[in-house]
Amino acid sequence: MGDATKEILEETFSSKSFGGHQKIFKHQSAELKCSMNFAVYIPPSNEQANTFPVLYYLSGLTCTEKNVIEKSGFQKYAALHGILVVAPDTSPRGCNVDGEDESWDLGTGAGFYVDASEPKWKEHYRMYSYVTKELPKIIEENFPVQKEAKSIMGHSMGGHGAIVCALKNPGLYRSVSAFAPIANPIECQWGQKAFGAYLGANKESWKEYDSTHLIGQYQGPDLKILVDQGNCDQFLKTQLLPENLISAAYPNKKIVLEYISRDGYDHSYYFISTFIEGHFKHHAKFLKGGPGTSVFND
Amino acid sequence: MGDATKEILEETFSSKSFGGHQKIFKHQSAELKCSMNFAVYIPPSNEQANTFPVLYYLSGLTCTEKNVIEKSGFQKYAALHGILVVAPDTSPRGCNVDGEDESWDLGTGAGFYVDASEPKWKEHYRMYSYVTKELPKIIEENFPVQKEAKSIMGHSMGGHGAIVCALKNPGLYRSVSAFAPIANPIECQWGQKAFGAYLGANKESWKEYDSTHLIGQYQGPDLKILVDQGNCDQFLKTQLLPENLISAAYPNKKIVLEYISRDGYDHSYYFISTFIEGHFKHHAKFLKGGPGTSVFND
Repeated sequence: MGDATKEILEETFSSKSFGGHQKIFKHQSAELKCSMNFAVYIPPSNEQANTFPVLYYLSGLTCTEKNVIEKSGFQKYAALHGILVVAPDTSPRGCNVDGEDESWDLGTGAGFYVDASEPKWKEHYRMYSYVTKELPKIIEENFPVQKEAKSIMGHSMGGHGAIVCALKNPGLYRSVSAFAPIANPIECQWGQKAFGAYLGANKESWKEYDSTHLIGQYQGPDLKILVDQGNCDQFLKTQLLPENLISAAYPNKKIVLEYISRDGYDHSYYFISTFIEGHFKHHAKFLKGGPGTSVFND
Repeated sequence: MGDATKEILEETFSSKSFGGHQKIFKHQSAELKCSMNFAVYIPPSNEQANTFPVLYYLSGLTCTEKNVIEKSGFQKYAALHGILVVAPDTSPRGCNVDGEDESWDLGTGAGFYVDASEPKWKEHYRMYSYVTKELPKIIEENFPVQKEAKSIMGHSMGGHGAIVCALKNPGLYRSVSAFAPIANPIECQWGQKAFGAYLGANKESWKEYDSTHLIGQYQGPDLKILVDQGNCDQFLKTQLLPENLISAAYPNKKIVLEYISRDGYDHSYYFISTFIEGHFKHHAKFLKGGPGTSVFND
């Protein structure tokens, strides 16, 4: 246990929910060089279980750690399956990077889960390292978790972030899922704006953070990716482009991409809350089944 | 069908949720003499059901029609039981009554579901008539509902409002429930401030809107009242005073008050979302069972 780390976590919120506790913590991030909030849902303990597998939830553009804990209703399913859920914020905050607060799709609230390489952004905008390395270390040192049992999911920018984190770190996550991911950011306006700013003009470097590019190359353990997508999502045809991810995944026998189109649903938390039960069932299967769990449906 | 009424309802929001649709409408209220929003969840239709019983949900201090639709997760259970849910705002808005925006517990966001009698407030602050008469008429004229099947519930100020609406209108609602109601407003600071302002100095007049006073006198059809209360609610001992309601209900054989104390829960929507499934089960029993449904547990 890292007592030094423990001392710097400040609990700023706690409320009982479905027998467990929804909490928010504040800490000073070494990767991001700023104060960050993250949310943790700790499911109820019982005699059989007092350590838990962990599911990371990455949120979308403009969100903080609060959206998913207030609006998705996931706590019911986290309690049911005994999964500890960690939801970080979506970018560094208050770093005084020139222009970081000028638009909602760049800078604050729009970290895109990349490590920036451009001089202006690279000191603070390191969300990829934050969510894959710094935050898991903090969670493992301070909460009752099973270190080896980690999964990841997200929504929109965070849905893409989750898929990228899983593809770039074979074996690190047992399972991955996404609601309405920005599936091919290199080819959409949101991604081009963010990657251009954070990663610079050389578009080759963008591919290292594009799920449609990465999915064909993946050579780790068999990986199932669950994607839910509303067919009335206002961003589907212009920004999300899931058909590109589907096409790129098909030739790779290491990947099973289960893509579900949901008739009439949009991009909101009303969509997420409707289908989040299935995502927890998906992750519970792999988190509890161990590394060799079949990627095919039962 | 009232086509004149229909024309003045403006749909300002719609999102698919659990197979149905969560919507928000704006209209000009005759009772309140201002523009008001209310939320309606329309459950999925099927061949067996295309009209629905209605459940009114009254929110608490500082809330709008949005809190419950975003944070409680009720749509899952409304869809399951086939119940249309109506959630009004908590007060008139923008009426320029002197002082209405000075504090969070009086005026805007704090209508307390009474009809004001004091000159300063009485033109606009008529939330009791709005939720028991004007709004049900609008719902019945514009939505696919079963007129005779109505129930009511709420949280905090709205939990008390729901109980008062049911006690003052025997037979109008099939069932009633509350989360953490302000059970005896005459005896707490929130209620004294609001009732003093809206109803004036004569405390006798306050009793007509106090559930603890009304519950002993109720002489309508047998009525079951379900109350959920967190025992770590920060307002329990100073503002809510449910023990007064329990004591007053006991001698009245027309009332079955099921009061459930929930260990460790607070006053928030984390508490509500944890237990709202049981409230929908309670209301579904009476809404579907008809007027003669037993008030005793099965």
